[in-house]
Amino acid sequence: MSEVLAKATQAKNAARHLASLSSQIKDMALEAMAAALESEADRILQENQKDVDAATAAGRPKAFIDRLTLNKKRISDMAEGLRQIKALPDPIGETISAWTRPNGLEVAQRRVPLGVVGIIYESRPNVTADAIGLCIKTANAVVLRGGSEAINSNQAISSVMARAACKAGIPEGSIQLICDTDRKSVIELMQLNGIIDVLIPRGGAGLIRTVVENSRIPVIETGVGNCHVYVDSECDPEMAVNIVVNAKTQRPGVCNAAEKLLIDKKAAPELLPVIAQKLREAGVELRGCPEAARYVDGLIPAAEEDWYTEYLDLIMAVKVVDGIDEAISHISKYGTKHSEAIVTTNYFKGRRFTQEVDAAAVYVNASTRFTDGFEFGFGAEIGISTQKLHARGPMGLKELTTIKYVVLGNGQIRK
Amino acid sequence: MSEVLAKATQAKNAARHLASLSSQIKDMALEAMAAALESEADRILQENQKDVDAATAAGRPKAFIDRLTLNKKRISDMAEGLRQIKALPDPIGETISAWTRPNGLEVAQRRVPLGVVGIIYESRPNVTADAIGLCIKTANAVVLRGGSEAINSNQAISSVMARAACKAGIPEGSIQLICDTDRKSVIELMQLNGIIDVLIPRGGAGLIRTVVENSRIPVIETGVGNCHVYVDSECDPEMAVNIVVNAKTQRPGVCNAAEKLLIDKKAAPELLPVIAQKLREAGVELRGCPEAARYVDGLIPAAEEDWYTEYLDLIMAVKVVDGIDEAISHISKYGTKHSEAIVTTNYFKGRRFTQEVDAAAVYVNASTRFTDGFEFGFGAEIGISTQKLHARGPMGLKELTTIKYVVLGNGQIRK
Repeated sequence: MSEVLAKATQAKNAARHLASLSSQIKDMALEAMAAALESEADRILQENQKDVDAATAAGRPKAFIDRLTLNKKRISDMAEGLRQIKALPDPIGETISAWTRPNGLEVAQRRVPLGVVGIIYESRPNVTADAIGLCIKTANAVVLRGGSEAINSNQAISSVMARAACKAGIPEGSIQLICDTDRKSVIELMQLNGIIDVLIPRGGAGLIRTVVENSRIPVIETGVGNCHVYVDSECDPEMAVNIVVNAKTQRPGVCNAAEKLLIDKKAAPELLPVIAQKLREAGVELRGCPEAARYVDGLIPAAEEDWYTEYLDLIMAVKVVDGIDEAISHISKYGTKHSEAIVTTNYFKGRRFTQEVDAAAVYVNASTRFTDGFEFGFGAEIGISTQKLHARGPMGLKELTTIKYVVLGNGQIRK
Repeated sequence: MSEVLAKATQAKNAARHLASLSSQIKDMALEAMAAALESEADRILQENQKDVDAATAAGRPKAFIDRLTLNKKRISDMAEGLRQIKALPDPIGETISAWTRPNGLEVAQRRVPLGVVGIIYESRPNVTADAIGLCIKTANAVVLRGGSEAINSNQAISSVMARAACKAGIPEGSIQLICDTDRKSVIELMQLNGIIDVLIPRGGAGLIRTVVENSRIPVIETGVGNCHVYVDSECDPEMAVNIVVNAKTQRPGVCNAAEKLLIDKKAAPELLPVIAQKLREAGVELRGCPEAARYVDGLIPAAEEDWYTEYLDLIMAVKVVDGIDEAISHISKYGTKHSEAIVTTNYFKGRRFTQEVDAAAVYVNASTRFTDGFEFGFGAEIGISTQKLHARGPMGLKELTTIKYVVLGNGQIRK
C-alpha cells in the first residue's frame, strides 16, 4: 500500500471517532498543540533551517525564502492562531433547523464534520499549523500535502502537533502529512474519492487549476481574484480616490486586491487624472484603454489580455466606460466573481450593482480588500472560495462542515 | 462554435438577467409553462410516439419503454408538478444573515441563483419539465442533456416550455436543450467550467460515475444507496418487522430502499425467522452470512461483493452482528452514506447510532424510505445528494441556490 493510501485510510478511520468528540477535548487539544509548538520551537527551527539552506543553495528568490523561513516570532504567531481558533464557538452539533412532519417523524438538520479534508499547498509552513487547527476544531481528520521545499519544516510541525493532540485525546491518525513530495503523490491523492471527502488547494493559480482539472474528489476552489472598482459619474471624489488606492495598493499580492479601475466617461475628465496621480505616487504602473489615455499621460496601452489578468502586483488597468451598464457587462465578461465594488452616491445604481454583479462579494462604497474571514468577523479563515457550490467567499469554520438529517420516529413506515 | 458551447453561452448570458427577475414573473412563467404543456399535449404525444416506436423497434425492454411513454395523464402530472413548484416560497433574495462590523460595514449574506445549471439525464421525459420548473423558480438558466432515446419528446417539451416562459417574461436563452445526442456532447458539456456553474447527473450509477470522474465543473452526486436497517437486541419485534419489510419492499427500485439487514445475534434466533418469512412472502430473495443461515432455511450464501451491492431489486442480504459496534463498523465499511436506520428501544443506542453513523440521513425507529424531498416537507426535489459538499440528502429549491455577500459602506478602506 502506498504512503498516500495508507495515511488517507488511517485518517478515514480516525474521522469516525473524531466526529463524536466533545468541544472540551478538541479545545484542550488546540491548547496542547499551541503549547507544544512553543516548547519545541528549537527543534522546528532546526528542521526549518534545512529547508531554508536547500532553498538558498537552489538559488530561490528572496521572497520565496522569506515565505519559507520561520523564527520564534512566527512560531508563536502560529500558536496564537491555534488559541484564537480554540476561542471560537464549536460549529459541530448545532441543529440548524428541525421540524415535525404530519406523520410524527421528527426531522433535524444537524451540523457535522465533513470527514477527511485534504489540503494541498505550497511553501508556507504556517499553513500546516493553521490547517490542522481548523480541521481539529471542526472534528475533521486532515491529510496534508505541502510543497517539497518545506518538507522538513512541515514534518516537524505536524509531528509535534499530532503528538500533542493525541495526548489530549484526539484519535491517533487524525493528522496526516504526506512525506512523498513527488508530483505523483498529489495525483494519487486526488483519486481517493470515498476516502477523502473534500480537497482544498491553497496556493497559486497553477496549483488550483491542476487540482480542479484532475480531482475526482469534490474541490473547493480558492483564490483567483480579478477584482474591479467601478467609479460612477455620481460619486464622492475623495471617497473614490481613497477606495481605489486602498483596493489596489494596501496589499497588492493578495486575491482581494483590485486589479482594474472602471470609470464612468462623465467622471473621467476630472477624476481620472487625480486617481492616476495618487496611484502612481503609490508606485502603481498604469495601463489602460485609448479613452483613458486622454486623461493620463504616458498610459501604457492595455492589451485584451490585460482585462483578464490578475496582476498580484503594483499594476492596474483603467477602462473608461459608458455608465453602469458597460461596467456590469465588462465585469461579467472579464471578472473572476471574487470581489467587485462600485463607488456611487446614487441609491439605484448601488442597488443595481449589488443585484446584477455576480460575485462572492459585492461592495458599495468600500474597498474590495475586506473580503476576508477575519474582516467579515468569522474569526478564522481557511481560504476564499471563488466557486458557488458549498462555500462562496471567505470560508470560516462552518464551511468545514456538512449536515446530516437525524430522523426520530416511533415505527413510521412509508405508505 | 459547437451546439453545446453556443447553447451554454446563451444560457450564461440569460442567467444574468434571470437573476434579478421578480417572483411574480417567475411564477407567471411556471403557470404559463404548465398551461402550454396541457394545450400542446397532442403535439408532445406525437413526438413521444416517435421515440416509443424507435425504442420498440430496437427491442428495448418493457420497463424502459414504460418509462419513456407519455400519455395525457402523465402530461397533466408534469403540469401539476410545475404548479406545485409555483406554489412554493421563492428562496431567491432571502437574507440568510446580516451583521454590522465595528468599522460600520454592513455585511449581508444573501441567497442568489447558482447561475447556469447543467442536467444530464437518461430516458425519462418528465425530468425535462421538472428540471426546467425547478431552475426557473430559482432563477437559474438550465442546459439539459437528455438521453438519445427520448430526444423527440425532450425537444417537444422543452420548446413548448421555453416559448411559454419567454412570453411570460423569462429572458430568451434561459432554457436550453442539447439536441446532439452523441456521447461527445456530454464530454464537451463537462468541460465548460466558467460557463456552467454546476452539473447534476440524474440516472444510473454508470452515468453518475462518468460525470464525477470526468467533469471539470462542480458536480452534485446523486443517487447510490446501499442502505441498512440494524435491528438491535432491544427492540419492539413488530416494529422491527414492519420497518424492515417496508424499507425493502415498498419500492425496491429506488435509492432509499434498504438493501441490507443487520441483526443483533441476541435478537436473531427469535426474530430473524419471522422477518425472513415476511420478506419472502413479499417476494424477497434472501442472502446472508453463515450465522444467519442457522435461522433461515435455504439462505443463499452472501459473497463479499453482496455487502457492497445496491440491488435495486427484491433481494436483501442479512448479517448477524455482535451488537451496535459491529453494526456501525459494518455500515462504515460497506455503506454509501445515504440512509441508515436502527430499530431499538434503548435510548443510548439510538443516540449513538445517530451520532456515529456517517450518512445523509440516520433514522431511529423509522423506515429508510422517508429520505425524500416531499417526505421531508420540501415540496420539491431535484435529487438526493450522497456527497457532503453543498447539499446532502434530499435537495429542494434551496440547494439550487448559492450565496453572495452584499457589503454596504460609507467609504471604508482597509488599514
